[in-house]
Amino acid sequence: MVGPPTDPAVPPAGAGGTAAAPFEQEATTVKKFVNTADTVLRDALTGLAAAHPELSVDIERRFVARAEPPRSGKVALVSGGGSGHEPLHAGFVGPGMLDAACPGEIFTSPVPDQMLAAASAVDSGAGVLFVVKNYTGDVMNFEMAADLAGDDGIETASVLVDDDVAVEDSTFTAGRRGTGATLFVEKIAGALAEEGADLAAVADMARRVDEASRSFAIALTACTTPASGKPGFDLPEDEIEVGVGIHGEPGRRREKVRPAAELAALLVDTVVDDLASAPDQPAIVLLNGMGGTPLIELYVLFGEVSARLEQRGVRVARSLVGNYVTSLDMAGASLTACRADDRMIDLWDAPVRTPALRWGV
Amino acid sequence: MVGPPTDPAVPPAGAGGTAAAPFEQEATTVKKFVNTADTVLRDALTGLAAAHPELSVDIERRFVARAEPPRSGKVALVSGGGSGHEPLHAGFVGPGMLDAACPGEIFTSPVPDQMLAAASAVDSGAGVLFVVKNYTGDVMNFEMAADLAGDDGIETASVLVDDDVAVEDSTFTAGRRGTGATLFVEKIAGALAEEGADLAAVADMARRVDEASRSFAIALTACTTPASGKPGFDLPEDEIEVGVGIHGEPGRRREKVRPAAELAALLVDTVVDDLASAPDQPAIVLLNGMGGTPLIELYVLFGEVSARLEQRGVRVARSLVGNYVTSLDMAGASLTACRADDRMIDLWDAPVRTPALRWGV
Repeated sequence: MVGPPTDPAVPPAGAGGTAAAPFEQEATTVKKFVNTADTVLRDALTGLAAAHPELSVDIERRFVARAEPPRSGKVALVSGGGSGHEPLHAGFVGPGMLDAACPGEIFTSPVPDQMLAAASAVDSGAGVLFVVKNYTGDVMNFEMAADLAGDDGIETASVLVDDDVAVEDSTFTAGRRGTGATLFVEKIAGALAEEGADLAAVADMARRVDEASRSFAIALTACTTPASGKPGFDLPEDEIEVGVGIHGEPGRRREKVRPAAELAALLVDTVVDDLASAPDQPAIVLLNGMGGTPLIELYVLFGEVSARLEQRGVRVARSLVGNYVTSLDMAGASLTACRADDRMIDLWDAPVRTPALRWGV
Repeated sequence: MVGPPTDPAVPPAGAGGTAAAPFEQEATTVKKFVNTADTVLRDALTGLAAAHPELSVDIERRFVARAEPPRSGKVALVSGGGSGHEPLHAGFVGPGMLDAACPGEIFTSPVPDQMLAAASAVDSGAGVLFVVKNYTGDVMNFEMAADLAGDDGIETASVLVDDDVAVEDSTFTAGRRGTGATLFVEKIAGALAEEGADLAAVADMARRVDEASRSFAIALTACTTPASGKPGFDLPEDEIEVGVGIHGEPGRRREKVRPAAELAALLVDTVVDDLASAPDQPAIVLLNGMGGTPLIELYVLFGEVSARLEQRGVRVARSLVGNYVTSLDMAGASLTACRADDRMIDLWDAPVRTPALRWGV
């Protein structure tokens, strides 16, 4: 039942992961706050549970749900994916957004058993929407989970998030990769589910948000997994990876580092050129840090992104700046824009109360 | 009127900062999202203004205030300090917390003119509390600002935040350095000011929160300023700096890297040993990332911190895990604990609506 890892460089921890002695010397040579590479997920879930009593963290079965029981008649949203992208997805569990999240090992798909356990825990009878980022392992495992859920009498639908315009196929993906639009899908479809819409309507809105969204990313540095202890790729001191994926997958090209204004133009132009032409329709914009980028740099970049969007005739209706869909300690940033209609903006503005997104409540 | 920088390695940008051509080649050799090192603060304020219409950003006079006008009779809280610690302080401006923040250049004290402009803008007549982290430049400049404000008929009081137990004196400090407790002071005293308390009461609460708080930090890597382009200190691949300051000031010692559980014990024991003995009094706890630490590692560490606090008999009443008082891209973490009485916890729970802290509204 264990699916293939989305990143073959990082093997799954295996069943013995939690039995490893926490203080083994070889596990501490990497300069990270970890006990052993094998126990990172379990240990992080332990910390998440301690920090967030409003969440119910099932450490054994590896899913995170809202602490309060499912509300009768409400469609449930379940997402998941490899760890290392925090706060995605567990940080988006709560009223107005996800009902549950299934974290895999670092950069490794969660398994169908996790997804099934989560769906069973949060289904109120109104069905479950799986929000799936387009990576081969994730897609395959969520499909298996949907079959298993069907056997158990749980109705499911799935939305595939594939917003990254960088490359058509990639290391772990057929078609476009799923990145920042996941946050838009989870927020907007989550708000619609909270209103009491049925599964077909929630799934339809989720797909429309994905279709209206495009992303593009730049890496200044590679990220380092606890298991490898070394940067995932080599990037010369004066070069950046243009179009990088959230696991450090190759992008379109290497370039010399350039001033923020030029990088902002590159991000904006690439995204806007690929967005549906809709001159009067405003955008919801996410300028996302990849985990190792200081917030002050994100604000510098957002000043330029905002100006460039205006030059390109895109009105920013709502924006979000911060670390939301990360790649461990990668320095870099991604831009996601969603051509939003009035309904999407209303749903975006609806109350949300999760560890990472919170407003209106 | 320009005060001494708190970090002599980073000279103030000078008056010509904004006139620099944004695309000069020499400014782009550092791999950061900046235009030039000289324009980082101005460019970041431009982005902050674009991202947060609920803030009023005065780019010329370099302060950030709430967009809505001061409320008659409310004591105003003004803080400030060198940039590079975002979201501190501008990210804490909003209802329930600060009325204004004055950012200096990176790791460099703001100047008295900024503080005076901010105080004048937000004083409703009920007076202004300056929240000052204990660094020589900040202390001197806020003192000058208080004198100038007095000349203008603005009543002020000051609270000095000095919670870092690592060292008694440091590179830019006489006495203990001010770090994570700043967030506690700004939140709790800010809530009291929102209730309508007078300046003496708000200042007294701020001082009591500082006295009840202790912090300690560990760096895994040094941070790199845009101006230098190089790490601020050398740290061997397998060593950590124990007791580091938020500008990379030396701590107590270098050590080999150790598992998260051991580092958590080191953080907790150092902080708890220095906290006032109050066995029945719970704590508000901040586990803070220094900017370059992935959130998943902070949760791993918090799981261990939480367990160790329980072992030490400290009950965690409230907790916060994330990047709040950062050191640019430094990988590392700090622990701050405040022995809070019931009143402080009530004020902690009070509504707050700022870019970086938001709940109850």
